[in-house]
Amino acid sequence: MTTVLPPVLRTAREVVDPVLRKVVARLDPDTRRVCEYHFGWRNADGTPDGGGGKALRPAMVLLSAQTCAAAEQPVAAAAAVELVHNFSLLHDDVMDGDTSRRHRPTAWIVFGRPAALLAGDALLALSTDVLLESSSPHAAAAARWLTDATRALIAGQAADLDFERRQEVSLRQCLRMAHDKTAALLACAASIGAVHVGAPPEVVSRLHAFGTELGMAFQLVDDLLGLWGDPEVTGKPVLADLRARKKSVPVVHALTSGTAAGDRLRELYAQSDPLTEDQLHEAAEMVRRAGSADWTRRECDRRLATAKQHLPTGPQHAAAALTELAEFIVRRKH
Amino acid sequence: MTTVLPPVLRTAREVVDPVLRKVVARLDPDTRRVCEYHFGWRNADGTPDGGGGKALRPAMVLLSAQTCAAAEQPVAAAAAVELVHNFSLLHDDVMDGDTSRRHRPTAWIVFGRPAALLAGDALLALSTDVLLESSSPHAAAAARWLTDATRALIAGQAADLDFERRQEVSLRQCLRMAHDKTAALLACAASIGAVHVGAPPEVVSRLHAFGTELGMAFQLVDDLLGLWGDPEVTGKPVLADLRARKKSVPVVHALTSGTAAGDRLRELYAQSDPLTEDQLHEAAEMVRRAGSADWTRRECDRRLATAKQHLPTGPQHAAAALTELAEFIVRRKH
Repeated sequence: MTTVLPPVLRTAREVVDPVLRKVVARLDPDTRRVCEYHFGWRNADGTPDGGGGKALRPAMVLLSAQTCAAAEQPVAAAAAVELVHNFSLLHDDVMDGDTSRRHRPTAWIVFGRPAALLAGDALLALSTDVLLESSSPHAAAAARWLTDATRALIAGQAADLDFERRQEVSLRQCLRMAHDKTAALLACAASIGAVHVGAPPEVVSRLHAFGTELGMAFQLVDDLLGLWGDPEVTGKPVLADLRARKKSVPVVHALTSGTAAGDRLRELYAQSDPLTEDQLHEAAEMVRRAGSADWTRRECDRRLATAKQHLPTGPQHAAAALTELAEFIVRRKH
Repeated sequence: MTTVLPPVLRTAREVVDPVLRKVVARLDPDTRRVCEYHFGWRNADGTPDGGGGKALRPAMVLLSAQTCAAAEQPVAAAAAVELVHNFSLLHDDVMDGDTSRRHRPTAWIVFGRPAALLAGDALLALSTDVLLESSSPHAAAAARWLTDATRALIAGQAADLDFERRQEVSLRQCLRMAHDKTAALLACAASIGAVHVGAPPEVVSRLHAFGTELGMAFQLVDDLLGLWGDPEVTGKPVLADLRARKKSVPVVHALTSGTAAGDRLRELYAQSDPLTEDQLHEAAEMVRRAGSADWTRRECDRRLATAKQHLPTGPQHAAAALTELAEFIVRRKH
């Protein structure tokens, strides 16, 4: 069964893409080329391409503002969040050495590490620009809301890299890392629209809590797809997370499970040589046997249910669309 | 003869450091540690250290605001510019593979590339924070002023890296790169204080022009020090720019001089093997013989003189202090 993309994603893409393209066009030609490739607007040779990611975050920004019955769409905020998200993808791919994304070679593979780093830097700087250019009197508050999330993102990536080198990571530390790396920006995406239109703090806070829970569910799904997702669908190499000995949530759950399968996984992770293909599959199987796949799936569902409870009681269609988006995120296959 | 540090630099350091330390303390412990090391506040083992750079840019921000007879000091703007400057140092050191800065191993040597990149990212995000937190009604305008300079900085670094791979670079392209890499942020430092206190556009524009010319002189001095500076004083390895076949302004001037020395330099730069120590010294000598050291020194003086002409006619002591700072920049040995 394929998961059908909710129509709000296409709408968000159509609304936000022109703003993104406009600000990226401000960059010097070299840096612009890398960004346009990364966004999927152009191929490596500069010819036009169909375009990029799922626009989940922009859709959340636009929908969450609708729950506040805002008169205007916070398009600038939606674009700014997408710029920060893509800044982090560009840099993370360099740091993690990931070679493919969205079924294409990563930017650093095509243009080299320095160019990809500069492109990420540029997108981060543009995210401030795009927000502060908007006419909203709350633009500065929204910009600070976004830098808080950016700081969390950086903390999460720092922890993620640190975990690769450490033997012992507790489940609590791992969930904290997942929060920082993923949930913080989704929480920002779910609430920055409300900040940008000047919604009451109570509404901002409910949307932030919704986004945090949904973001956690999102990361848990990502972790599961990193272990059992179909590379043809995800666009990522099979078992890449295990190969890099990432301490994702299901892995840490298994490592700290006190089961025989967890102990075997620990042995494999402690091995000095790179894991063989057979060992990679065995490691994935140990995660499953430790009960960690089931636990992660249940935790996903629980987070999704909690997220829905936080949704503010705004216009019915907006809440319904946000719920639909939330469910899509948890059911997606890529 | 040693160059005495103008007292304004120490004052700027004392005013801005507490703000920098406060915002860096917001970061996660791993990233914070890297930033505190980079700023020279701590050693690699976490013990306190004496502290860092020359605070040229913060001093320019504070002094330029004085030329507008501003009631308040734009400390936030001074801190923000210093954060952007240090973001670029952290990232450039990774991209250029530079191993020492200010007589210490660079951050990526001590903490690894990913940690240094994340630290740079964090400083860039904090620069927005620190400006938008200030109570100035012009903070958002100042933040956009700063992102314009950041974009130029990125363009300059992209061009600098591109030049290393290219055979042909014109003097004009090279001067443009020097402008983007160095002069744009100095121009911002010289004018953002005026933006932050709401000075008239005419004053902002004069200060920006002053900073641009001074920034060009600054980069030309840097290029000369990169060739003939004393490594003991500069804290950089001898002839590092030639070793990396950087196309700095004096080098490009020599390469495009049409002299025999320029032709020999071209041969050396085209060689596929790394240059030997003898060849590095020969290359430096060819730059001198092509007349490019003299030309660069004259160009420096010309830029400095032009810079002074742009200075607005504000309070006498502020203009005098800015002039003193400008002269220090051009006479410095490190």
